Amino acid sequence: MSELRHDPTTDGWVIVAPERNRRPRNGRPPPGRMQGLPSFDPTCPFCPGNESLLPSIIAETGSSGEPGWGTRVVANKFAAVSQDAADRNGSSLYEIKPGWGHHEVIVEASRHDKDLVTMSKQEIHAVLLTYRNRYDALMVDAAVQSVILFRNRGSAAGASIQHPHSQMVALQLVPPLVEARQAAMIDYYKGKSRCVLCDVIAHEQMDGSRIVAENDAFVSVAPFAAIAPCEMWLLPKRHQADFGEIQDAEIGLLAVALQDALIRLSATLRDPPYNYVIDSAAKGGSGAPHLHWRLRIVPQVVTPAGFELGSGLPINTSAPEHDAAVLRSAAADCAKEMDA
Amino acid sequence: MSELRHDPTTDGWVIVAPERNRRPRNGRPPPGRMQGLPSFDPTCPFCPGNESLLPSIIAETGSSGEPGWGTRVVANKFAAVSQDAADRNGSSLYEIKPGWGHHEVIVEASRHDKDLVTMSKQEIHAVLLTYRNRYDALMVDAAVQSVILFRNRGSAAGASIQHPHSQMVALQLVPPLVEARQAAMIDYYKGKSRCVLCDVIAHEQMDGSRIVAENDAFVSVAPFAAIAPCEMWLLPKRHQADFGEIQDAEIGLLAVALQDALIRLSATLRDPPYNYVIDSAAKGGSGAPHLHWRLRIVPQVVTPAGFELGSGLPINTSAPEHDAAVLRSAAADCAKEMDA
Repeated sequence: MSELRHDPTTDGWVIVAPERNRRPRNGRPPPGRMQGLPSFDPTCPFCPGNESLLPSIIAETGSSGEPGWGTRVVANKFAAVSQDAADRNGSSLYEIKPGWGHHEVIVEASRHDKDLVTMSKQEIHAVLLTYRNRYDALMVDAAVQSVILFRNRGSAAGASIQHPHSQMVALQLVPPLVEARQAAMIDYYKGKSRCVLCDVIAHEQMDGSRIVAENDAFVSVAPFAAIAPCEMWLLPKRHQADFGEIQDAEIGLLAVALQDALIRLSATLRDPPYNYVIDSAAKGGSGAPHLHWRLRIVPQVVTPAGFELGSGLPINTSAPEHDAAVLRSAAADCAKEMDA
Repeated sequence: MSELRHDPTTDGWVIVAPERNRRPRNGRPPPGRMQGLPSFDPTCPFCPGNESLLPSIIAETGSSGEPGWGTRVVANKFAAVSQDAADRNGSSLYEIKPGWGHHEVIVEASRHDKDLVTMSKQEIHAVLLTYRNRYDALMVDAAVQSVILFRNRGSAAGASIQHPHSQMVALQLVPPLVEARQAAMIDYYKGKSRCVLCDVIAHEQMDGSRIVAENDAFVSVAPFAAIAPCEMWLLPKRHQADFGEIQDAEIGLLAVALQDALIRLSATLRDPPYNYVIDSAAKGGSGAPHLHWRLRIVPQVVTPAGFELGSGLPINTSAPEHDAAVLRSAAADCAKEMDA
């Protein structure tokens, strides 16, 4: 029997229908991580020595103890938005805006075959520090209203290059999901004078059934109204509206929580394709009492179909309480590492 | 260079970025139609003789001139919603509603290897008549607020069974996309005292660049703010708020338009996986001056990724004007049939 669940952080609904998980399957999604990748690929634009394939290098950090670079920020060659976007007139029926913005790639390591689940904590720390530095740098641009920071892992999750990388898109507008989330969070705050995600953290810690892991600065949960099997949210315990507010010590604990979550996910769904995104505040939201950023991991293991296209109601074929129990017991080693 | 385009029928935005179509690809989506399907599959619940695999048969139509049935309506064995959904209490933080509703499958032919592109016009006519009859029957249920009618073709579009079929889900609520669309259509009507889709039809007929095909009752267009390459809308020329308002003569012309569109799509994108959905009015909308139903076909040829997950902004890697030109010239034979 299915049920509809409401997400108070977005005002969205989802159908949770575990029975549908028994449907016949026509093939399984390809794994997120390619097995047996070479450490260097001569055709990969993100591998060292192939810089002629890149439009430009924006920033670089050193590698800990090794020669060469650790992380690198480059312009996206096939950018969704750019700074030279031209204005074009619409009509009385159809409105047009220029596709203005920044589209950057954060190359997470110089080695082609690295991945967040196998990197050292120091390497992940460097990646997250690069996230925050570029996030801050893009937000300084007066025209930028919102930054979307995301990672695609596996071709079934939209990754066109295997070399480990994340992306950032800075836009001149506040996109619809960011607007809807902020509106829902303000609504909640108006009614209760409390931040909805602070309430979610307190509720989940009390309840326990959807907690996956926890450290001093972050709690990992399977959200009540998850849109996909094994969706996880990494929530900063200290109230922070904007990702740019994260402190240096918290970055280290986010590295621990992120690797822990990805190892559990990989063990539970056998290395699935996934996306993650940092849901942060739009310009001007920093310090707001009603907003609270999160890192949201969504495995791509169920294909949305005509029903979702017509209704906008995701169908999740797995109950978050069940997923959380499996994720908790998966990779018992992670739990120890998480405490370390 | 990309641009943002507004859809006046949904108030949604899309990034049109044809440059991104030059990205490297890690594999191409599997074709929507399986080549070399048998005419009968002993394990298929929709094949004649396998009725023991079905929960129940709801309705059946005769086949034209052949023994056996033509179309069949059956209960979905792995239903997303059902009539025996139980009430369960939520909490002050998390709201829950029962997953109440109807979930039916319209089996489009008794033969396992039929498809809408190869059926006769009479066969497609029978399928569409079954759509309307079941749509009307479900809307009569006092608890039903909205019916989502859709078709998934190919496993990459979410189809778990190859036997040709469509689905209908009747819900006790108006789902978010139906609500957003109706709100946008009312807004437009309030400002201009005209139906937005009637205006779209007039605009596209005048402009011509996004028209794919046309007959006496339907016009097929690549929409201005298409969310995917080769998205098509089949629009009834006569103002009709609700799919239940379609007249018998129009069903025949919808059969012609639908097959024409699917043949063009198959020729253009080499038999792609796709979804289509009938965007119709929620309960009480029939006869409304501001609402207008459509059949919307969305090929699943681009994988949405972390950006879309975080922003809610689809990126379309193809310009609708370009798609319309290719779809127009594809399968020149269709154009003749369309006139027939």
